[in-house]
Amino acid sequence: MEIADWRKKIDELDEQIVALLSARAAAAVAIGQLKSKTAAPIYEPQREQIVFDHVREANPGPLSGAQLQDVYERIMDVMRALQRPVSNTDSK
Amino acid sequence: MEIADWRKKIDELDEQIVALLSARAAAAVAIGQLKSKTAAPIYEPQREQIVFDHVREANPGPLSGAQLQDVYERIMDVMRALQRPVSNTDSK
Repeated sequence: MEIADWRKKIDELDEQIVALLSARAAAAVAIGQLKSKTAAPIYEPQREQIVFDHVREANPGPLSGAQLQDVYERIMDVMRALQRPVSNTDSK
Repeated sequence: MEIADWRKKIDELDEQIVALLSARAAAAVAIGQLKSKTAAPIYEPQREQIVFDHVREANPGPLSGAQLQDVYERIMDVMRALQRPVSNTDSK
């Protein structure tokens, strides 16, 4: 396969990744709404550690565990922002 | 659905996201090997912009385009590191 073929494959993978990240974000919004009803904290480091451990266990490579966690730290940052009502007015 | 139910759903989504990110990483490694044969640069800002535009177009929400791009900037950072031979000895 040439570079162009691999990039076509990457573009297809990205469409699937975006769909899954969006489903994950919708679930985070739902959790945020449930948390706001009980005044539960948005940031729960114990839960975030469970997520990191889970994705590291599921990791088949070639990304290292640290690299995968780097990606997930950004995902969790963004999901946390989405759970904060003020972030919904952020139009950047 | 309760928070625990949403978290179970998130864990299932994460397993799929990890599988797709790993397939994407494997494609990036293949591209890196092709690039090394032709001494092509690892960092290609034009291609990265195409990726950002593509994922923003595919984005159904609730993440904003900027939030999705934040996640993808981290993904691209990690994939670029994976294409550099020296990063393969990084055991962190």
